[in-house]
Parts: sequence; C-alpha cells; structure tokens
Amino acid sequence: MKERELRIGLVGTGGIGRSHIERINRQLQGGVVTACADPASEFGLSIAEKNGLKGYADPMEMINDPEVDAVICTTADPYHEQYVMAAIQAGKYIFCEKPLAPKADACKRIVEAELKAGKKYVQVGFMRRYDRGYRQLKEAIDTKAYGEALLLHCAHRNPSVPDDWDNTMAVENSMVHEIDVLRWLLGEDYATAEVRFGKSTSRGPKGLHDPQIMILTTKSGVRIDVESFVNNFNDYDIKCEIVCENAVLNMPEPVYISVNTKAQKGQAMYTDCFQRFEEAYNVELQSWINATKEDRVEGPTAWDGYACQVAAAAASKARDTQTIVPVVYDEMPELYKA
Amino acid sequence: MKERELRIGLVGTGGIGRSHIERINRQLQGGVVTACADPASEFGLSIAEKNGLKGYADPMEMINDPEVDAVICTTADPYHEQYVMAAIQAGKYIFCEKPLAPKADACKRIVEAELKAGKKYVQVGFMRRYDRGYRQLKEAIDTKAYGEALLLHCAHRNPSVPDDWDNTMAVENSMVHEIDVLRWLLGEDYATAEVRFGKSTSRGPKGLHDPQIMILTTKSGVRIDVESFVNNFNDYDIKCEIVCENAVLNMPEPVYISVNTKAQKGQAMYTDCFQRFEEAYNVELQSWINATKEDRVEGPTAWDGYACQVAAAAASKARDTQTIVPVVYDEMPELYKA
Amino acid sequence: MKERELRIGLVGTGGIGRSHIERINRQLQGGVVTACADPASEFGLSIAEKNGLKGYADPMEMINDPEVDAVICTTADPYHEQYVMAAIQAGKYIFCEKPLAPKADACKRIVEAELKAGKKYVQVGFMRRYDRGYRQLKEAIDTKAYGEALLLHCAHRNPSVPDDWDNTMAVENSMVHEIDVLRWLLGEDYATAEVRFGKSTSRGPKGLHDPQIMILTTKSGVRIDVESFVNNFNDYDIKCEIVCENAVLNMPEPVYISVNTKAQKGQAMYTDCFQRFEEAYNVELQSWINATKEDRVEGPTAWDGYACQVAAAAASKARDTQTIVPVVYDEMPELYKA
Amino acid sequence: MKERELRIGLVGTGGIGRSHIERINRQLQGGVVTACADPASEFGLSIAEKNGLKGYADPMEMINDPEVDAVICTTADPYHEQYVMAAIQAGKYIFCEKPLAPKADACKRIVEAELKAGKKYVQVGFMRRYDRGYRQLKEAIDTKAYGEALLLHCAHRNPSVPDDWDNTMAVENSMVHEIDVLRWLLGEDYATAEVRFGKSTSRGPKGLHDPQIMILTTKSGVRIDVESFVNNFNDYDIKCEIVCENAVLNMPEPVYISVNTKAQKGQAMYTDCFQRFEEAYNVELQSWINATKEDRVEGPTAWDGYACQVAAAAASKARDTQTIVPVVYDEMPELYKA
Repeated sequence: MKERELRIGLVGTGGIGRSHIERINRQLQGGVVTACADPASEFGLSIAEKNGLKGYADPMEMINDPEVDAVICTTADPYHEQYVMAAIQAGKYIFCEKPLAPKADACKRIVEAELKAGKKYVQVGFMRRYDRGYRQLKEAIDTKAYGEALLLHCAHRNPSVPDDWDNTMAVENSMVHEIDVLRWLLGEDYATAEVRFGKSTSRGPKGLHDPQIMILTTKSGVRIDVESFVNNFNDYDIKCEIVCENAVLNMPEPVYISVNTKAQKGQAMYTDCFQRFEEAYNVELQSWINATKEDRVEGPTAWDGYACQVAAAAASKARDTQTIVPVVYDEMPELYKA
Repeated sequence: MKERELRIGLVGTGGIGRSHIERINRQLQGGVVTACADPASEFGLSIAEKNGLKGYADPMEMINDPEVDAVICTTADPYHEQYVMAAIQAGKYIFCEKPLAPKADACKRIVEAELKAGKKYVQVGFMRRYDRGYRQLKEAIDTKAYGEALLLHCAHRNPSVPDDWDNTMAVENSMVHEIDVLRWLLGEDYATAEVRFGKSTSRGPKGLHDPQIMILTTKSGVRIDVESFVNNFNDYDIKCEIVCENAVLNMPEPVYISVNTKAQKGQAMYTDCFQRFEEAYNVELQSWINATKEDRVEGPTAWDGYACQVAAAAASKARDTQTIVPVVYDEMPELYKA
Repeated sequence: MKERELRIGLVGTGGIGRSHIERINRQLQGGVVTACADPASEFGLSIAEKNGLKGYADPMEMINDPEVDAVICTTADPYHEQYVMAAIQAGKYIFCEKPLAPKADACKRIVEAELKAGKKYVQVGFMRRYDRGYRQLKEAIDTKAYGEALLLHCAHRNPSVPDDWDNTMAVENSMVHEIDVLRWLLGEDYATAEVRFGKSTSRGPKGLHDPQIMILTTKSGVRIDVESFVNNFNDYDIKCEIVCENAVLNMPEPVYISVNTKAQKGQAMYTDCFQRFEEAYNVELQSWINATKEDRVEGPTAWDGYACQVAAAAASKARDTQTIVPVVYDEMPELYKA
Repeated sequence: MKERELRIGLVGTGGIGRSHIERINRQLQGGVVTACADPASEFGLSIAEKNGLKGYADPMEMINDPEVDAVICTTADPYHEQYVMAAIQAGKYIFCEKPLAPKADACKRIVEAELKAGKKYVQVGFMRRYDRGYRQLKEAIDTKAYGEALLLHCAHRNPSVPDDWDNTMAVENSMVHEIDVLRWLLGEDYATAEVRFGKSTSRGPKGLHDPQIMILTTKSGVRIDVESFVNNFNDYDIKCEIVCENAVLNMPEPVYISVNTKAQKGQAMYTDCFQRFEEAYNVELQSWINATKEDRVEGPTAWDGYACQVAAAAASKARDTQTIVPVVYDEMPELYKA
C-alpha cells in the first residue's frame, strides 16, 4: 500500500513555482502540494484558489502550519534566505530553487543555521545533477577506466533571452549551472575563475557581450572552459566534453528521429531548457520527496549552494576586472562531509 | 488538490505483474494498486502480503469487490479472456497485457461483450504506442510533409532467449509488437503476411530458425519487412526505418554518452526491453490511469487486440506453410471507429 | 623514374567514356588515353579531335593498332561483346564497363575466348569493389571476428531517373551493382532470386513499379534484400547493413560537415553516383592500369561478368513471373579460380 | 593528349621527401620527380640510386640544372631558406614544406626576394587547406548563410610523440597547422596569442605540459581556442567547431564503417596524420603541379609562410611569459593581395 503523501507548501507562485505544482500534483508520486503563498499576498491567494490549494496571505504562516510537512521555495532570489531560514527554524525540509541566495554570505548564514540545528534541511534546485547525460558522465569518470579528467569543454547555448538580460547574467543565470554541476561531476572545488569575451553576435541586444567564455580551474588543475551563447537564434544545447587521459567523453544526442530529406540527413535539437531537462526536473523533485519522507537530505546541500555562489562571485569579479580571480571558500563543516 | 486515487486490483502476480505494482505504487500518480490475486491462489496471497496489499484467493471476488475501481490483468495469456470478461461484466475498466487472448476468436468474444455493454472497457498492453520514437515517427508521417509511406524496414534484435523458445515465438512473442504498432503507425489494416527464414545463427538453440523475416503488406500496398533476431549475443535494438515518397525516417539513437577511446568512438546500446521501453511503460500506465479516471478508453482497444491476433495467426500460418497468407478481418463495429 | 605510360584506346565516346578519358588524362597515373573511336564513326572522330587524341573511323582498326597497348570499352551494352572479343583476339587487356554483355550467353562466349587463349584479358567495370566502405565491410567479414554473415539489408536510392526508365531497369541498371558486389563481399554464389514490389511512389513515371525489392539467397543460405528506389526526390544513398552472428555492420556516412542551424543538426547527403563513387572510379581505373602494366588481371573478371548476368537474368525472370527463380551457373573453369 | 610532364628536383630525402617522391611518381599526374639531392650528399645520392632518379651531390647544382623544371624542398627546417632562395634566383617554382623557415625574419627575406623578382615562386606545404572538411567549412562560412563566425573551438589530438618532444612543440609542430589554416578559413590576420596549460596527463614524458591550450584572437575579434593533446594514447583527431551567429559547424566524421557489437555501436578513428590527411596531401601536390605548369602560384604563399611564423613566435612568447602577446605583422605587399 502507498504511504501517506508528503504535504507540501510552496512559496513563490510565479512560473517555475506553478510548473512545480503541476509536476508534483500531476506526474510525481508520494507528495502533494496542498498549500501555497507568495510574497505578493494577493497573487499567492489567487493561484491557490485556481489550483484548489489552501492559500495563505503570509508565507511564514504557511511554513509554520503543522499541516504542511515540507516546503518548496520558488520566489525571486532575494526572498530565498528568509523563507529557508523560517523552514529550518520550523524544523521542516525545504527545496529551494537555485541560487540558494544571491550572495555567498547569505548562503553562509543558512549553512550556519543548519549547523546550529545540527541537521541538514535544505536541498538546492540544481537539477542538472539529475540529468541522465551528466550522471553517465560522472559514472564514467568515477570508474577511472579512462584516467583522470584533464580538460572540460562546455557550452550553454540558447535561442534568445529577455530584454532585461545584461552582461552579468551569462555567469549568474546560465553558467551558474555549470559551476555547480561540474564541481559535483569532478568531485572537487575550484581554484580560479576567469571570464573572457568573444566577438559578439550582431543579433543580440546592443551592448551585450554574447558569447562569453568562463574559464575555471579546479584545485587539482583541471581546466574548464564554458561558452555561454544565449542569442544563437538556433537551439538550446548543453555541451560537456570531458578530455580524460585516455578518452574523450561527450553528452548523449537529443532524442529525436532522424529525417533524411532534400539531400540532408539530420534531427531536431532542443529549443528550451524544459524540453532539455524535463526528465531531470522530474527525477530531482521525486528524489527530494522520497528523501524527505525518509528524513534526510540527499541532493545538493546548502553548502553546495554556498560553494556555487563563492565561485560565481569570483567569476563575476573576473568578468568585471578582466583578470584571473582566485576562488576562496571557508572550510567545509563536518555536517556536509559525506 | 489531488483527486482521489484510482484503486486498482491486479490479477496475475508474476514478474510483469509485480513490476506494474512497483511502477504504479512507486513512480506513477493518481492510482494505487490496493489489491491483488492470482489464478494460483496461494501465490497471489503471498505477493499481497509481501506488498501490503489486500489479497484475494479468488481473482473473481477481487474484480467484483466495490473497493476495486479498475483492474489490471497480467496473468498467463490463456487466462486473460475470463478476467477481462469478468471486468466488463462488472463494468470496470481493465488494462490487459498483450496479447488480449492467444486466439483471434477469444478476442472477438471480448469485443462482442463490449458491444453488448455498449461501451469500451479494455486497454491492451501494447506499450510501444507510447514510445517517444514511435510517436515522433507517427507525427512525421501524419503531417504528410514527406509524402506517403511506401516501405518499412524493421528489426527486433535481442541478445538471447530462454531455452523453451521455439520457432513460433518470433512471430508470437517478438514481432507481434510490430504487428500492432505498425498498424497504428500507418493507420491501416494488413492485407497479407509472409514469414521467411535467413541463414540461422550457430549460437542459438538447435533447430531454431533465427533470424526470421516477417513480411506484411497493408491494404493500401505498403510493404513492411521485420527481422526478428533473438540470439544476437549483442544488444536489444528496435529498428523502424520508414521510406516515404520524399524522405527516410529512422528511430532515435539510444540515450548514452559517447566514448572515444582506443581509437574507437561509440556509445552503449540497450540490452533488454525494460531499458529500451522504460519510459513507454510509464507513459502507458499513467495514460491508462488518467483515462480511466476520466471514464474512457484512450489506448489500444479490444478491437486492436483482436486485429493483432488475426494478423499474427496469418503470419503463423504463413510461417508453417511457407506461403503468402491473406489477413482477413471481420468488419469493424461502430464502437471502435474514432 | 616513371615507367613508360600505358597507351590506351577507348571505344565508345559517350558520357561515361569521356569521363574516363578525363579521369585518366587528368587525374590518374601511368596510363594515357591516346586514341578513341565510336561505333558511330563521325561522333568518335569528333571527340578525338576535341580531345587531341588519335581518332579512328573503325574501332576494330584502333583495337588492332600496335600503338594501342590496351583498350577501354564504354559503348552501349550490345556492342561490348564484339570489341571485347577483338581485344582478346589481339592479345590486349580490355576494361569493359558493366555489364560485360546484356545476356549471360554472350558473357559465356567471352569466357570461352579467354579459355581458348589460356589467359585472362578482361576486367569488368564493377567499381563498387573499389569503394572504401565495401572494402572495410569485406575486411570485417573476412576476419570472422563477428561470426558468419546471416542477413544483408541493402538499398539503392536515387533522386530521379530518365523518362525511358522502365520496370526492368531496377534490376538491370541499379541492383545489378549489388548482384556483383555482394557476391564478391560474401565470397559465394547465389542460389535463388526474387523480386517484389512495394507501394509505388506517386512521383515517378506512370506505370513504374518504384520501389522494387530484390531478394537473393546465397548457396550457404545468406538472405539479402535490396531496395531499389530510383525516384526518391531526395538523395543518392547506398545502404549495406550486414547482420552477422555477433554484430551489425553498416556503411560509413557521407563525408560532409555537420551543420546545426534552425534547431536541426545534420549533414548533406550525396546526390549522384559520381559524387558517391568518385574515389572508387579512380581507384578502379588506376588499379586496372597498374595491373595491366604488370601483365595481369586483378579486378572483376569475365567470369564475374558472366556470373552477374546469370543472377540478373534470374532476377528479371523472377520479377516477370513473381516467383522465386533458382540461379544456375555453369561450372567455374580453373582459369578463374584464385 | 597529355602535356609534357613537369620535371621535379627534390631536395631533402628524409621521410617526408621520400613519401612525396612516392606520391608523385606513383599516384599523381602531370609531374615526375626526376632528380634528388640532400644537404647530406651521400644520403641524397643513395636515395637517388634506389629510386632510379638522377642524383646530385650538391643540391644547388640540381636546382640550377635546366633539366629540372621545378623544385620541392623537404629538408630540415633550417635549410629551407637557402634552397628556396636558390630556386627564386633560378626563376623556378618551389614547393617548400612548412614552416617556410623557423624564424619570421627568414621568411621575410624570402618574401623580399620574390618582391625583387616581381613574381611569386613559392608554395608552402600547409596541406590542411586542401582537406575536404576544412574546404567545406570555408565554403559554409563564405556563403554568409550562417552569419559571422564568432568562436572557434579546435583540437589537435595525437596518440603519442617522440622522446625529444618538448614544451615548445605543441605550438611549433602541432598547432602551427591551426595557425595557418584558421587564418585562411576566416580570411583575416590575428591580433593576439596566448598559451595556457591544462592539468598534464600522467602518461606523457616527465615535465611536459600536455595538453596545452592556445588562444588566438583575430583582428575582427573572433576568439579561437585550440587544444593540443599529443599523448592521448587514443586517436589522431582534428576538431574544428565554428560557432557562427546562427549555426554551429563541425568537421566530418572519419570514413569508417559502423560496428555494433557487444552492446556498443561505434566506428574506428584515425590514428595518424597520414591516414587523416592522405587525400589532402594528394590534392595539395597535384594542385601545385597543375598551377606550376600554368605558370602561377595558387596555394599558400611565402607571405602566408611569413604570417604563420609571426603568429607562432607570438604564441611561443605568450607560452614562455604566460601573458597575452600581440601579433604584429609588417604590411602586406601588393604582390600578395588577391
């Protein structure tokens, strides 16, 4: 027989929040979003009504309601800290969309709250760790059959971006995913960050450096280059080529039929991140529900959220100063060591 | 808020039955297997106990219990008819693994029971219709952008088979999937069937014709060849190449990373049908749960189950006589016309 | 230092003849076309003048001229026999475009002329044996690393054909290449031939069966199917999939860059046989020049030419009668045994 | 009729020289190596004798012999200048293997000799410009259908290198090919060069930085990264991915059959530069012979040879100093403008 379902309260009822409600209540299992709220109270209440959920004018009230077992936070980034803190205080597991908080020191405060509680409560929404391709790459590296990873050549390509996209966002909105997932893939922290510009496309917004190249090195010396090209007027494509001592590994191709017509043979490519990472989003949230019911955090932790923002801040500084910037972390507390 | 879950009683607690319990109760949504039974009463009861389900010594009692909303039948093939009939009698939706029944006339009796009830209750477990690759192929054909389909070249390849596999099973266990899915893909019935043998592998059981080639033609003249090679000591690979007037369409490649090492570049292939059709099985059963809760049959019907067995019988006769055998169906009742 | 060049007289100054003149005199090495002629005397003389070659009104005179070391025959098929016979009589090596002669008995007369002369003089223009892809396939099979070949799935696809193309030509002009090259690839003769029709494309000439499927079996039981589809309004594509006991082998892809644009990733395909087999034509004729200067025949022999026409005749009869027709060869004379 | 063959004298009878003799005298057309010599006189004479060529103790004598129409220089790099100068003096076309000379100022002296003669005589042996893949990439870019090239991601991978390979050679022996061919591909000069190190493989010689990454920018701002990894114990693989405003272009795959066995599907990769660029070497030298007979230089000129060494020197300095070094050329003389 099925166990009792996890009752989830979601704070932040914008696009991504609503897609998580949909996902959990229509596709996943073992959990149900029963309540929602938003920093904009009226908005949160209206979404609650439309979806037949219990609405709360005050998100804090929802987080503390005993009928809510666990929390999802999908608000705008600057609100994350307060709701995550509230969940920790309430002793409830919380899934917080990335970034954990915009600044590393805010992330650090969350880490300290967990340390004080003596327990991990937070999973950060880095869904790429749940992608089949990245998982296969990690397995292949972890076997050591191909020797050490030496170089990674990555790309984050995207058809177009909203008008308010600026030069900071290649690092902070797109390549931040690589910052997390490659650290997980390689199992080590970064040493330096650097951001360089290529020739800019004439098709993007004026004044935008696009593409941008981020170069990271790890503590052991692995060199990573990541191309972010967000106005390619083409496809959504995530590349990750790993040059090992004895092998070169690459991502699977998109899952589309091949079509040979008009003397061309080819296949469709993905066009947005939801097509590309649909399965990863499902596996991520299912995994969070399962782990929560088993009273543990299994995915990316608050420390991972902190580590990501430290490297992102270094990359941002590197971009602004056009220098190579060291990535300096605090020491990892025992709680976060496997 | 989530709706009430569909309470499912499953009859036939062998391997495939248990995997469906697992799938529904651990991965899918909106339904829950609450009860089970098996023609071998003791066995069914023991599985019930192990899984925390309500057990019934008599499957018929379970089917008729008002606490069971819908039924899944995963018994050995010869038992299908009686349980499907019982579900129709009880006015309950039933998902029956393929084949609906071993013989076309048994399938026909089920069709007639539905006709008498004036309503469809049965979905047959042809999971390939839910496979992403086949769906993309069907969409591509249905657009007519590539002209009419003229030829299909298919293959059903498998590493090895159990010892009791005999010469009838290439048609009846493996290519029967193609018989259903290609009829659905092309949207038309078959006209003739033929089965021919290639040179047999030295690696299969003695006396087995393996590979075998089945050739089907449709009413409009499309010619299909299907290779069944079930002892390839290699991979599980399902090919479906569609030669249209202006294009050639092929299945997506397996979703594995590429590995370039030792001067070879390649990727893994699937090795069994559960790897290959994992997603299709999930989508199939989720879709059945959803449709059932909306009080309708959406997937392959009892008529599709009948039509498949008519063609399979023709192919079997063609194999035994080494002649071309016409495929002759009864007229399709109104109930099954879209 | 280079040796003296082979002086070649070419008979048959149509398209393929002129392309061979071009090829030999502009790209290859060790031979030079010095003379030409055509059954249509005036035409032959005019081509000679345009190309700065010695022209002969009478091809027989050219063949017998001591200043001609070797002969190429590229006339219309029915003329092949007489010129090949003349070259054998004159004791000169001759490269004759395929087919050696339209009828198997004419081919047999050529074989007998060689037997009488006690020496091979003839190479038949089956250029596919010189194709890199087929050679790699043959090497892979010959290693026996993948077990016996069991099934071959082949296709010969072509954008469109001239108006005078009729139902006999799928076998006699297109699949005749497979008849030769697959016999060479597998190293054995055919046992039976069969030709079947698929649904015909609406885009070809009225009354044409296109595509057609030829099915050949070899003496050891290998089963081959060859699709000929000559009005695909798409590409020129030669498929050859070999299903071995432990492996499936396929042709290399065309050599074109990949282009990822408009959310499609793909590459160009070949559009005619000269693009596709450009390298094979060069290797074939270079190999003939080299072997001729070393006083031997290395490529497809008159016996191969005969064997091909025997199987083609069986396939043609099979097509006309829609039956399975045995392929019956005379016994191979010692002269042609390796 | 064929024209008279170009009589070629070759200086430098080491491995590459002998392979060019072989290539020209066995495969190409319209030219013949009739004479050879070597700075080591005895060695040159012995090669001449073995190959039936006229030998000269003094290369200068050969270059000036009226029976030699044109010259090929394949000596060790430091000897190039003097023989190229001698050929220019003698008014003879010369094909000189890359680099034209080790230092840019030596290249410049050759350029000045041509300027003084008022005519181009020199073709430098950058064979990649004749590779089918690079030519297709250049055509694709030149159409402008895909917008401007913005980024190039290249790699030069190689199984292993001789013991005397040192840290300077990644730029000077391997990536120097990219320096030339990418300048040609993009049709513009470089602005800056930079060389960085990745984590080094444990499988190469001690003390070697391998892989190395060279970063070039062009005058218009295109950013190029080139990975040189010369001890990959795997394959010989040349990557060139071009990120355009609307498309991503990549090299063709190697021309090998696909093999699906043991649940892996893949194909062979090249293992050395002669396999990889066999066709390019042939086309290059054939093209040189043809152009020479038409009294013109068509391929990479002395100026290209100079431009390459200027950029290579900048890259070498960048490597040694770990800084970004500007690439500064003299002004291109009229003679070299298309």
